[in-house]
Amino acid sequence: MLTESPLPIRHPTPSWRRYLAPKILRQVYEGTPVTEDFAEGYPSDEEWHGYINNNDRVLLKVIHYSSPTSAGAECIDPNCTWVEQWVHRAGPREKIYFKPEEVKAAIVTCGGLCPGLNDVIRQIVITLEIYGVKNIVGIPFGYRGFSDKGLAEMPLSRKVVQNIHLSGGSLLGVSRGGPSVSDIVSSMEERGINMLFVLGGNGTHAGANAIHDECRKRKLKVAVVGVPKTIDNDILLMDKTFGFDTAVEEAQRAINSAYIEAHSAYHGIGVVKLMGRSSGFIAMQSSLASGQVDICLIPEVPFNLHGPHGVLRHLKYLIETKGSAVVCVAEGAGQNLVEKTNATDASGNIVLGDIGVRIQQETKKYFKEIGIPADVKYIDPTYMIRACRANASDGILCTVLGQNAVHGAFAGYSGITVGICNTHYVYFPIPEVISHPREVDPNSRMWHRCLTSTGQPDFI
Amino acid sequence: MLTESPLPIRHPTPSWRRYLAPKILRQVYEGTPVTEDFAEGYPSDEEWHGYINNNDRVLLKVIHYSSPTSAGAECIDPNCTWVEQWVHRAGPREKIYFKPEEVKAAIVTCGGLCPGLNDVIRQIVITLEIYGVKNIVGIPFGYRGFSDKGLAEMPLSRKVVQNIHLSGGSLLGVSRGGPSVSDIVSSMEERGINMLFVLGGNGTHAGANAIHDECRKRKLKVAVVGVPKTIDNDILLMDKTFGFDTAVEEAQRAINSAYIEAHSAYHGIGVVKLMGRSSGFIAMQSSLASGQVDICLIPEVPFNLHGPHGVLRHLKYLIETKGSAVVCVAEGAGQNLVEKTNATDASGNIVLGDIGVRIQQETKKYFKEIGIPADVKYIDPTYMIRACRANASDGILCTVLGQNAVHGAFAGYSGITVGICNTHYVYFPIPEVISHPREVDPNSRMWHRCLTSTGQPDFI
Amino acid sequence: MLTESPLPIRHPTPSWRRYLAPKILRQVYEGTPVTEDFAEGYPSDEEWHGYINNNDRVLLKVIHYSSPTSAGAECIDPNCTWVEQWVHRAGPREKIYFKPEEVKAAIVTCGGLCPGLNDVIRQIVITLEIYGVKNIVGIPFGYRGFSDKGLAEMPLSRKVVQNIHLSGGSLLGVSRGGPSVSDIVSSMEERGINMLFVLGGNGTHAGANAIHDECRKRKLKVAVVGVPKTIDNDILLMDKTFGFDTAVEEAQRAINSAYIEAHSAYHGIGVVKLMGRSSGFIAMQSSLASGQVDICLIPEVPFNLHGPHGVLRHLKYLIETKGSAVVCVAEGAGQNLVEKTNATDASGNIVLGDIGVRIQQETKKYFKEIGIPADVKYIDPTYMIRACRANASDGILCTVLGQNAVHGAFAGYSGITVGICNTHYVYFPIPEVISHPREVDPNSRMWHRCLTSTGQPDFI
Amino acid sequence: MLTESPLPIRHPTPSWRRYLAPKILRQVYEGTPVTEDFAEGYPSDEEWHGYINNNDRVLLKVIHYSSPTSAGAECIDPNCTWVEQWVHRAGPREKIYFKPEEVKAAIVTCGGLCPGLNDVIRQIVITLEIYGVKNIVGIPFGYRGFSDKGLAEMPLSRKVVQNIHLSGGSLLGVSRGGPSVSDIVSSMEERGINMLFVLGGNGTHAGANAIHDECRKRKLKVAVVGVPKTIDNDILLMDKTFGFDTAVEEAQRAINSAYIEAHSAYHGIGVVKLMGRSSGFIAMQSSLASGQVDICLIPEVPFNLHGPHGVLRHLKYLIETKGSAVVCVAEGAGQNLVEKTNATDASGNIVLGDIGVRIQQETKKYFKEIGIPADVKYIDPTYMIRACRANASDGILCTVLGQNAVHGAFAGYSGITVGICNTHYVYFPIPEVISHPREVDPNSRMWHRCLTSTGQPDFI
Repeated sequence: MLTESPLPIRHPTPSWRRYLAPKILRQVYEGTPVTEDFAEGYPSDEEWHGYINNNDRVLLKVIHYSSPTSAGAECIDPNCTWVEQWVHRAGPREKIYFKPEEVKAAIVTCGGLCPGLNDVIRQIVITLEIYGVKNIVGIPFGYRGFSDKGLAEMPLSRKVVQNIHLSGGSLLGVSRGGPSVSDIVSSMEERGINMLFVLGGNGTHAGANAIHDECRKRKLKVAVVGVPKTIDNDILLMDKTFGFDTAVEEAQRAINSAYIEAHSAYHGIGVVKLMGRSSGFIAMQSSLASGQVDICLIPEVPFNLHGPHGVLRHLKYLIETKGSAVVCVAEGAGQNLVEKTNATDASGNIVLGDIGVRIQQETKKYFKEIGIPADVKYIDPTYMIRACRANASDGILCTVLGQNAVHGAFAGYSGITVGICNTHYVYFPIPEVISHPREVDPNSRMWHRCLTSTGQPDFI
Repeated sequence: MLTESPLPIRHPTPSWRRYLAPKILRQVYEGTPVTEDFAEGYPSDEEWHGYINNNDRVLLKVIHYSSPTSAGAECIDPNCTWVEQWVHRAGPREKIYFKPEEVKAAIVTCGGLCPGLNDVIRQIVITLEIYGVKNIVGIPFGYRGFSDKGLAEMPLSRKVVQNIHLSGGSLLGVSRGGPSVSDIVSSMEERGINMLFVLGGNGTHAGANAIHDECRKRKLKVAVVGVPKTIDNDILLMDKTFGFDTAVEEAQRAINSAYIEAHSAYHGIGVVKLMGRSSGFIAMQSSLASGQVDICLIPEVPFNLHGPHGVLRHLKYLIETKGSAVVCVAEGAGQNLVEKTNATDASGNIVLGDIGVRIQQETKKYFKEIGIPADVKYIDPTYMIRACRANASDGILCTVLGQNAVHGAFAGYSGITVGICNTHYVYFPIPEVISHPREVDPNSRMWHRCLTSTGQPDFI
Repeated sequence: MLTESPLPIRHPTPSWRRYLAPKILRQVYEGTPVTEDFAEGYPSDEEWHGYINNNDRVLLKVIHYSSPTSAGAECIDPNCTWVEQWVHRAGPREKIYFKPEEVKAAIVTCGGLCPGLNDVIRQIVITLEIYGVKNIVGIPFGYRGFSDKGLAEMPLSRKVVQNIHLSGGSLLGVSRGGPSVSDIVSSMEERGINMLFVLGGNGTHAGANAIHDECRKRKLKVAVVGVPKTIDNDILLMDKTFGFDTAVEEAQRAINSAYIEAHSAYHGIGVVKLMGRSSGFIAMQSSLASGQVDICLIPEVPFNLHGPHGVLRHLKYLIETKGSAVVCVAEGAGQNLVEKTNATDASGNIVLGDIGVRIQQETKKYFKEIGIPADVKYIDPTYMIRACRANASDGILCTVLGQNAVHGAFAGYSGITVGICNTHYVYFPIPEVISHPREVDPNSRMWHRCLTSTGQPDFI
Repeated sequence: MLTESPLPIRHPTPSWRRYLAPKILRQVYEGTPVTEDFAEGYPSDEEWHGYINNNDRVLLKVIHYSSPTSAGAECIDPNCTWVEQWVHRAGPREKIYFKPEEVKAAIVTCGGLCPGLNDVIRQIVITLEIYGVKNIVGIPFGYRGFSDKGLAEMPLSRKVVQNIHLSGGSLLGVSRGGPSVSDIVSSMEERGINMLFVLGGNGTHAGANAIHDECRKRKLKVAVVGVPKTIDNDILLMDKTFGFDTAVEEAQRAINSAYIEAHSAYHGIGVVKLMGRSSGFIAMQSSLASGQVDICLIPEVPFNLHGPHGVLRHLKYLIETKGSAVVCVAEGAGQNLVEKTNATDASGNIVLGDIGVRIQQETKKYFKEIGIPADVKYIDPTYMIRACRANASDGILCTVLGQNAVHGAFAGYSGITVGICNTHYVYFPIPEVISHPREVDPNSRMWHRCLTSTGQPDFI
């Protein structure tokens, strides 16, 4: 479809043209151009009030920094020359590359829970039905569902998914790990799946991309489309990922509880551990939103607990001046301060040492040593946040991502993922967004705002 | 006041007549009977639409068991003879025993946080102002505030407390421990406090009673009135204590999160630890309310983890049949199964071993040993529950308790506490309700209902 | 079953013995005593940890008023002689009067929505299954479902009802009105229904009682058991009805919104209309719980809008002194002040004039006339409250009521309803509780507490 | 300050350079350049981790439409040539144009309530204090507070505002209307106010701009900075305004209630009226988020109630096929269908006819006429939404807007307002954003998504 003008979206990006080449499609519909197929009755103009032109693009970077010293400046040269970088706009195309009645679509949810999973599942199913797809299944418990014979596919329809967004969790179940890419693709072949929607984080997306590659190798006409699912908000190039907003919202309960416990106690210190393995977005935004946090610790910004500039010394200062203090720490912060574990979970993630418990213990010990009473309370709301249903804002995000995932698959794209970029919905080639986790920039305005809000100094 | 007819409220109850004897009051108002004082202008009939007659009584036990084998039967003889036991009805009296302008009232909140503390503080202040009291103070951070010179009394008025019930915690701060009874009473004398309202649990009430005794010994005309504050609901003879209803409500979030995590995982097991040091009311009621708990463990009912009837064997059964399971455990349950600590906190409570963590660890180990995958998630929402503001039901309870505490003090009672009994508000002599913590009766209908709801067997 | 000792529960109460007479049951199980049937395998002792003895009783009135002038006194003579009145204790009996495999149970929900309907439905189904009943159906849309051929019975099982309590509304649908009692009973005969659980208010219970009478007339062995469903809490003799607690909780949002609107506006007045056709419990309790209401108006207490003692004059006073005011009015209050409608709804209830709108309009007019600016905001949260899911407290209440409804039917009772009385669960003969709606006693302590909280004068 | 390079931000925009000209500032600090003042000790580099360079810019439009037929295309020529339009980036500048100790800052909140007002007030105060400003006041009840002698300025400090964001409403009070611009500026002169922060909608911003103009005319060195406050989200060029996200979140309760009422009733129809005088963003986004709305009606899209394509006919279809329906209507929708009122409120807004009530009445009438029973429930949650506290997302938005308002004033800008544009924070000259209300584009993808979600046809 885009062969004539493989629009360079981002320079240089050799991996960019990651759609199903029209050539392959033409092989399938031998002698019958896809556009004519569509003319014969696939989703009609009447149903859709407006199509996205394939050449529509959305800008990736929208700030023109006038100096490398501007807060958060990302400059490629001393003049901070502004470079246009464009990405594909997401949405329904006039021409579709699958006959709806020939589609068997599958949805799989991998990794840990995240608010909004059911919203995305629901919307993928509903949108597939609008395209006319009848054969839709859920793969139970992540990639594992492709190999475990005891786990049956779950037939999906609007009736099944109608109200699933009203509760948290995943209708399909989640799990980490699973069979090899080759086994997954073989299983898909056996089952006749030619559209696969994969909800998961970086690792899951790497898997989805490998499945896409394997399908191409086997010359299968299969569309593999990802929907980034990371409560940590750590996917590159995107404004935010679904579930993040809900997590920040729900974290307020924990922070406010810590504040009230700290404030109501004599020399009270409340410590809240929030999600964020390698990026501190949840901790940063939750601290900002609450206005009640005195110290925010994230993986991107190193800190000492002990010593003249350490966290503990600042806690002493806060207890002496304010009488209480609230600490908000991301789970991945200060990993140099906790015992190394070499263990990994089924997703291959290193099991982190518990920095929250560590801070709690060191704080108790420190105040005991200096002879000042302190009443330390530790709150870990992780599972209570993950299991929430999506709030309205995430509900909308999930709805649009789910719709666009289906539009992308029907438009003949594969190996892509959907995202929101500068408030607009776009398609990214998977490798572009998973090279490494997105992190909080310690020079960004947002982190500065957080520091202004907490009033905390450097802890180094 | 009640000297002529010391109505036997509960047989036998020698400690029952625990009000300030009118004789003492008459000494204070030499030659001027209190009733005449009142006639001269203290709270007038116009302000109060109805008084409680001093001889009004409320029945303590209202079930007539026809057989000792009836569920929950508490029988004193084989015929289950029904014995009337009456307690004093709480509320405003026509005659008051303090001149409002001579009152200096103090409020103190002790122990841990509990939803509703601010509601009770607020209502005590408002009601005192309605009586005409101008001199009202809060003692900061529990009994500690009586001895710590650095902690100033907090002046209280309707303006100060108007909206404090909209947030959790305690305006005055809480803490455990404090100075000796003798030092407290001396401090009260110095400060001129002649009405003391004490919010706390069993230990705090024992302290309040000792303060009352010391005041009588020193012939001080001081009214000491308690308001039972125990989120565990473990005070004898009362329908419920404030904060408990809110705790059960908030526990639903944690249980539902555990359910969703368990249900969305492959062989998921969710473990929720709730409050309840020596009584399992929160765990029992929360399990019943949720309808999502498979195993409920409370201090009153012993259980084994291991062995053919143990909890772990039943978890195996649940995983094999349902695919997931939710466990709700009270913090004081199964203390024989955790390592003994001899440590005590400042309130003198033994620091409990952590049964929640223990169950989590043993469950992981067990399933690993039997070679069945299991995904165990542990949630401890304690501080997030304690720090909540009171829900509407507790808000009303707190309002009425606070009002009645003031009515009781003005009626000349001391060494009493306020409570709700068979939906009516009453005064109890403190020793009657603190002899031991109230516990769940394993033969009660409520525990049976919980077992019916969870479907769990005996674990012995 | 109780023929030998028709225990007088309440004097005089000739209608009390409203169970299925054992004689009839014996006719059914000719030659086979029901107790022996049970011995042959119906719910065994092992499943139930404790039975209720048929002669267990619960006291109806538990206050001993010492004088007719005591607040809230209900005295039968000048000495306020205390009379024992006993009601049957609810719960499972050792002997059951239906063979579970011969039972076809039906559930019907009538009238308007009320939080907890799904909880009760769920628990009836679960408890029936525990008894061994397999044939359980829901009658759609109230009594109407018995006559409308287009509405099919809904088969019910634990699987169907497992999570219905997580959302509001009624799984079965509700409606007002319906066919004649004779048609209903004929329809039940045709369908083979021999246990009918009816959830509804006073009118619905009158219907249930008529169905019970008709069944006895036709010599049908049918148990008809009611569960009082009235968000207004206006059923006689009961501590409270399900949904009421949730309603008071949810009403806090509306009252707090009115408070914030009033407080943030220049001369702001917030008016909230709450449910309560003939009784003001919701308005009273919600006002008490909020602590933010200045004027609470209920059906039981007449008031004037205009005139020197009218509500409007007091509003002027509040605006002049406090700058803002909040009014909470029950829908049935001040019906003499609104235009009479002769219309009735399908339940036969008179359509009330809208007192909330009336107060809003008159207030605007009044302040315009007296030349004082006033900013009046009107909030009617009725449907947002009714549609809520039950809170935890109501969840437990519904669970126990549902269980006891089934226990009552199996115990051979019919024409009864279940309730909570002095914190214990009991069975009432339907006519005892529906003679008239329960009302707020203007001399009760609770109303006095509300007046103390609002600080409002008499408006007559 | 920007005199050397008056960067054209948006072409053509003659009104664009709306900062306080350095010339004026120099007059004030005669002989003492502002930059040197700063060097002598105003907010130092140490306090701020990064400044915004004055020449940093943010792109206004970020989609490149490849064809005028692309969904939502806004093209200036047939080729859809993409035009760069840049706006000033918001944030702290290295040079400030006010000596903090000479600043008297005032905050005023106008119009109706909106979630987040207190968050913005709080953050303006906190940020002013960080700059070193000591003299901060709140003007009570909108512009009215400038003229009403009875209304005293409210002194503001961090202590006062610390926790105000935890409740809804406005600490300062709001109102519509007020004195003339000339009187306001004279009052400001008298009071010595030289920084004015104005929170309000389009009308209020017009006022703020007029105040700015009047100040320049009088050669007063005053910074007037707006913060757009419109729950309707109807300000041009901005991603969203504060309070909108919270409104959409809270609207879910009302919609879900309507859904449950409709679904639980026989032929139930729920109608929810939401805010949106001239733009339907709240109704559209709330419908999308809920997934439970069948018909969404907004001011931008005309519709008929009656006739073959009317809303009522579609309701009949829904009742016949689904059995229930939910309608979500913006208050400003279908104004041609309601009686015209010529009344205006104090803000000059035309008082709208009530389309919600109209739809309710017409629906009842229609179904009565066609002889199909229908149970119509109407919900208007407006005040319950407006009075909410901001959710976390809006909390962050408010925090950053408040900070940037202060940064803008200290940077010497006046006649500007702050906003978020493509996820970045920017300054706009007021006239740019208030020429007309922002509206939903019926050709936009978002409206199409809403139509896809509801499945509704055109109603013309």
